[in-house]
Amino acid sequence: MSDLRAEAEALDGKDELAAKREEFVLDETVYLDGNSLGALPANVPGRLAEVMTHEWGRLRIRSWSESGWWTAPERIGDRIAPLVGAAPGQIVVGDSTSVNVFKALVAAVRIARDPGNPSGGRDEIVVDATTFPTDGYIAESAARLTGCRLIPVAPGDVPGVLGDRTAAVLLNHADYRTGRLHDLPGLTAAVHAAGAPVVWDLCHTAGALPVGLDEHGVDLAVGCTYKYLNGGPGSPAYLYVREALQPRFDSPLPGWNSHAEPFGMRAEFEAADGALRGRVGTPDILSMLALEASLDAWDGVSIDAVRAKSLALTDFFLRCVGAYVPTGRVESLTPAAHAERGSQVALRCEGAGDVMRRLIEQGVVGDFRAPDVLRFGFTPLYVSFGDAERAARILARTLA
Amino acid sequence: MSDLRAEAEALDGKDELAAKREEFVLDETVYLDGNSLGALPANVPGRLAEVMTHEWGRLRIRSWSESGWWTAPERIGDRIAPLVGAAPGQIVVGDSTSVNVFKALVAAVRIARDPGNPSGGRDEIVVDATTFPTDGYIAESAARLTGCRLIPVAPGDVPGVLGDRTAAVLLNHADYRTGRLHDLPGLTAAVHAAGAPVVWDLCHTAGALPVGLDEHGVDLAVGCTYKYLNGGPGSPAYLYVREALQPRFDSPLPGWNSHAEPFGMRAEFEAADGALRGRVGTPDILSMLALEASLDAWDGVSIDAVRAKSLALTDFFLRCVGAYVPTGRVESLTPAAHAERGSQVALRCEGAGDVMRRLIEQGVVGDFRAPDVLRFGFTPLYVSFGDAERAARILARTLA
Repeated sequence: MSDLRAEAEALDGKDELAAKREEFVLDETVYLDGNSLGALPANVPGRLAEVMTHEWGRLRIRSWSESGWWTAPERIGDRIAPLVGAAPGQIVVGDSTSVNVFKALVAAVRIARDPGNPSGGRDEIVVDATTFPTDGYIAESAARLTGCRLIPVAPGDVPGVLGDRTAAVLLNHADYRTGRLHDLPGLTAAVHAAGAPVVWDLCHTAGALPVGLDEHGVDLAVGCTYKYLNGGPGSPAYLYVREALQPRFDSPLPGWNSHAEPFGMRAEFEAADGALRGRVGTPDILSMLALEASLDAWDGVSIDAVRAKSLALTDFFLRCVGAYVPTGRVESLTPAAHAERGSQVALRCEGAGDVMRRLIEQGVVGDFRAPDVLRFGFTPLYVSFGDAERAARILARTLA
Repeated sequence: MSDLRAEAEALDGKDELAAKREEFVLDETVYLDGNSLGALPANVPGRLAEVMTHEWGRLRIRSWSESGWWTAPERIGDRIAPLVGAAPGQIVVGDSTSVNVFKALVAAVRIARDPGNPSGGRDEIVVDATTFPTDGYIAESAARLTGCRLIPVAPGDVPGVLGDRTAAVLLNHADYRTGRLHDLPGLTAAVHAAGAPVVWDLCHTAGALPVGLDEHGVDLAVGCTYKYLNGGPGSPAYLYVREALQPRFDSPLPGWNSHAEPFGMRAEFEAADGALRGRVGTPDILSMLALEASLDAWDGVSIDAVRAKSLALTDFFLRCVGAYVPTGRVESLTPAAHAERGSQVALRCEGAGDVMRRLIEQGVVGDFRAPDVLRFGFTPLYVSFGDAERAARILARTLA
């Protein structure tokens, strides 16, 4: 056994999260694509069977009240809250990330232009130019509908373009391609100094590292739940609205679920109090309750422990890659500095698409992002150091 | 046995859809709330168990291609298409009805103002004032974001307010409260004569009666799938965009799923061809595949047979109510004329909230709509004439 294999065994032996792996359905595959679709938590099929046969099948319409369906968006939001450093009452679950980006960004522009805010002339939306494309497309639409100009810049250049015309800023906490972690506290403070609200997209960080939304005074945030939160394919996204801003959260999608009295069936819209303002239409109950069950995996887990393991895993994987893969065959795009690293490793590699296909054939599942990136996601709840070592070893063999 | 009971038995005996009831999970309850939440199709739990354990649990990320997850929105749209009289390639499933109303209405305004359309000054959105509230709230938001004025009128008064300032019209095919069916062909023609596109909300008619979207030249339509389509609580809604309008469909929610090359991860948005333009973010797979399985119930079913049974059921229920309930205790809000009737019966009744609670206690499940309406929905696939007779009999006993 190589030294690194022995080291992996030792690291797994003292991993305080190791037992969590048993709560997921895994097999001999080395699954490093949890940053795209989290693995199935073992309790979800049973829970959803109960929802279907008992709650829908027997109680039917009564389940909206008796089975707690109606309040699921805010209840599940409160389950996600501690994972992103939010006090209760600030997160609702529902809709896709894209739709939530739209709500958040239009609402942010309206907050910036609020009558109580003297800078009415704010007409620029600053957006992370390296963002996952959907955020950029939605930002462009939000800009068009609110009469703003879109300013795409690299996150590091954001402070330089802020000013009294800034209406809102949309940033990703981690770059989906490189795994680079952006400076949420620093950039939030810079946007605030310019008098504008900031929207953070947490898709690639929630469940992988501490976010600290309340601590850092983030205004609005969105995120998906099917990556590190393991909620299932396309499971509903969430929207965080800081408590102090909730009275001014003026949604561009004011559906009956965000009405102060949803069953009053009143012609006039009157927004509900609190995070509920982020709701729109009827929540997607099957997907939502699968997500709720999946969150049981977080019981007793500290997000600091998750972060520590995530960094240890990516450090170890990079060491194994360095040891096994011939020099020059891959180049890490993921920052070496812990403060700049999310929970994935991106390797630039010639013929990356073909290489990933061959890795998958050999039971190492990551993904390929055009034009030349191999992505390996490390989900601390179920990825082991042994997985990291094996992935690097098989990658080296594939490139040999 | 009363004459009406015997008649119910005879009607059930010759009901060509009677066998469909076996495909749903039902019990001794008389379930007349399928217009709010359709009953559970018996095949759904098994299918969703397979999706969870095999597709998500074993194949994981590979299921996006190998299990057909990625193409589910348009594939399931094509399953719904014949039920609403649409040729394939015009419907996508996803998001809530409210979100789809927003997409459709903003896109409609943009179509009305298209450079190819000489009437650029169109700035009025006409909306059904009797609509389900969410449509009105969303229409107000669409008006605000597109610089339009909202004109709420009763559907019958729509022709009188149309003109060269009309940018778009949003109408409900059936009134959610009274069950009144509106004149889709006539109103569509009137809106077209004014040079504007029309958006129809089919929530209360799709799966209960023929809609004829293509035949009547409807421009855009939306609908939910959890009522007469039995897709499950909060199952994804759908959006119809007439083929000829698809190249001009300019969505306010252009997510990566509606991009011409979604995995190209390009910074510039370029809309996909066809109905896919109505997609936004990652589709909610568990809910979506539950819906797909639920649509198996429509195999071999003609929507004309469904309509014939629906009218026979509501006729028969009204006759039973007339025969059993003392004169003056309830008043039907549902039109007697078949051409003006959806698939529900709404009865105005003093103390309706309390009456409905007592009905439910006795196993007759309808619902209450403030301030004084008892709603009874008749889903032709699983409601029997015996159910209708029993519901009227228990209603009479409750009011006695």
